[in-house]
Amino acid sequence: MKTLKSIGYSIELGSDALTQLNQFFKKETYSSYFIICDENTLTHCLPTLLSSCKALKDAEVIEIESGEASKDIEIATHIWQTLIELKADKQALIINLGGGVVSDLGGFVASVYKRGIDFINIPTSLLAMADASVGGKTGIDLGTVKNVIGTITQPKCVFINFDFLHSLPERHVNNGLAEVYKMALISDANFWKKLSTQKNITNLESVITKSISLKNTIVKKDPFEKNSRKALNFGHTIGHAIESVLLGTKNELLHGEAIVIGMMAEAWLSYQKKLVTKTALHDIISVLKATFNPQTILPSYMDAITTIALNDKKNSKNEIRCVLLNGVGDYKIDVVITPAQIKKALEYYNSRIIEN
Amino acid sequence: MKTLKSIGYSIELGSDALTQLNQFFKKETYSSYFIICDENTLTHCLPTLLSSCKALKDAEVIEIESGEASKDIEIATHIWQTLIELKADKQALIINLGGGVVSDLGGFVASVYKRGIDFINIPTSLLAMADASVGGKTGIDLGTVKNVIGTITQPKCVFINFDFLHSLPERHVNNGLAEVYKMALISDANFWKKLSTQKNITNLESVITKSISLKNTIVKKDPFEKNSRKALNFGHTIGHAIESVLLGTKNELLHGEAIVIGMMAEAWLSYQKKLVTKTALHDIISVLKATFNPQTILPSYMDAITTIALNDKKNSKNEIRCVLLNGVGDYKIDVVITPAQIKKALEYYNSRIIEN
Repeated sequence: MKTLKSIGYSIELGSDALTQLNQFFKKETYSSYFIICDENTLTHCLPTLLSSCKALKDAEVIEIESGEASKDIEIATHIWQTLIELKADKQALIINLGGGVVSDLGGFVASVYKRGIDFINIPTSLLAMADASVGGKTGIDLGTVKNVIGTITQPKCVFINFDFLHSLPERHVNNGLAEVYKMALISDANFWKKLSTQKNITNLESVITKSISLKNTIVKKDPFEKNSRKALNFGHTIGHAIESVLLGTKNELLHGEAIVIGMMAEAWLSYQKKLVTKTALHDIISVLKATFNPQTILPSYMDAITTIALNDKKNSKNEIRCVLLNGVGDYKIDVVITPAQIKKALEYYNSRIIEN
Repeated sequence: MKTLKSIGYSIELGSDALTQLNQFFKKETYSSYFIICDENTLTHCLPTLLSSCKALKDAEVIEIESGEASKDIEIATHIWQTLIELKADKQALIINLGGGVVSDLGGFVASVYKRGIDFINIPTSLLAMADASVGGKTGIDLGTVKNVIGTITQPKCVFINFDFLHSLPERHVNNGLAEVYKMALISDANFWKKLSTQKNITNLESVITKSISLKNTIVKKDPFEKNSRKALNFGHTIGHAIESVLLGTKNELLHGEAIVIGMMAEAWLSYQKKLVTKTALHDIISVLKATFNPQTILPSYMDAITTIALNDKKNSKNEIRCVLLNGVGDYKIDVVITPAQIKKALEYYNSRIIEN
């Protein structure tokens, strides 16, 4: 059992997490409980949660469909209407039981309902444990623009029960590991070295804990992303754009899968800007390629990807601002890149994927 | 010219306010400007603003329909989509030029767009000057539930140009004065005395400034309404419910008009709970009646009013929690009242309105 202190709340990790959750319910007083989950966590995680927490015996369960399409203003409005109908007051608690979609949506819903009610996160995917559990970002999408409506609101507590990972398919394990590799690349060269020498990650609990701890250090220094927290967006300028463009197509990617491509393309941009050596670039490309086995990007998507990248939240004054690597284990924020450079980076990426 | 310091921002009041706005634009750097206004402020206030502020020559104007119905999730979504289309980035500024509807909606839109961009308020109604300009409450309605979705986010600055009041019809002057009288009742017996001895308020600028200053003192002590800030809700438990029920009917009331009725009913509840004397009650009733000339509430609306009051944001655990007066110039928060007491209070109110 481990406890990490974040901004005004704690992250409880380990086999003991649900016992800690019971302690939390003994300490805090709420008027009512609302569990937000999707069809997967309803089946695989909710029974465990309900059987271990008596406080939740009268909790209302609000089920959403799994998948990014649920991070939608209509779904958010539907949940607010349900909360009103069920007379949720300012002392109600929202419990987000699921992956990043559930915690992004549920956190946003809670952060503006009656100008903000408490919520806790119980992440059930590796991605949500390693990434969404720290930092307080909540949000929904509008059209193809991801997370464009949201808040930075910290949960009351986060409970990470690694047992929930057992129900996770391999594709979703890799989805979360992408953010773990990113944390290593931007902030810890030794951690990167450890990850890159493993053929398969067998010690999931320890790499997740390490990744959360690295992210927590960055977020605590700059909660509102004025400065150093921007580092966490490495791989995301291009990765988010790819994810948005492919959403709803037959080539749709999970978040982490898109970020892997974004990291490889942005690593090449870092090399172009003389921020990483050729050796480091080749090391990054080969490790990510071997670990995640990503596919090429069809040339027909290129224009749409650069258009979306231009509308990225991190931009300023019509320039695309990107986080690049400054050597392995360090970063440089607010590097201006052009749509043409993004295209070249993706062409480089494609060329490295098709080579043997 | 007067400057009031609020929570991390200042309120500039007086004939010099637009000059101060120019100073603000010289000091702060934004990538683009978006002015939210309604058809009235577009005609009566926007020309003045544009002719006095060169920085706004390329500003985009987003027009909404005047009236509470615009505080709606669809309108908010439409504005977010417009901001995305016009490539508003995190360094964009939203300028709310209008009454409380514009600043509540525009403030909410800004507070969650790309997880929060800056906004300034230029209130043009007496209500918005006296009330909505301080405190950082933003929000929209859902169905008949007022302000149920929102945030507490402070503007970057507030500019109060009293000249905008000249275009205001008398009904809207009284609409704002209701909150001024409320501020006196809950926090300043001398100010109440001054107001109650005037037949007509001729010194609008000075009473607005006094009212803002009183509100600012309360808000600064408790920005997130955990405690003493609840005092500002005097008259609002019953008043909000009345406003909601009558919305869209031929008896629709302005916010301040509903709050006057709420204050009279809640003053009676204060007397019932032995918190104010009979003399004080009679004084309050006769001053508010003479100043605002409110109308009776139809008995057919009573049930709907109590139902809505039960879903008030300020409630806890299915009890109706109300702010009552504790003598004139003081308040008591979290007083539990019942639906039956609300009905009795409104019957008392009706009886006092029909008597000569």
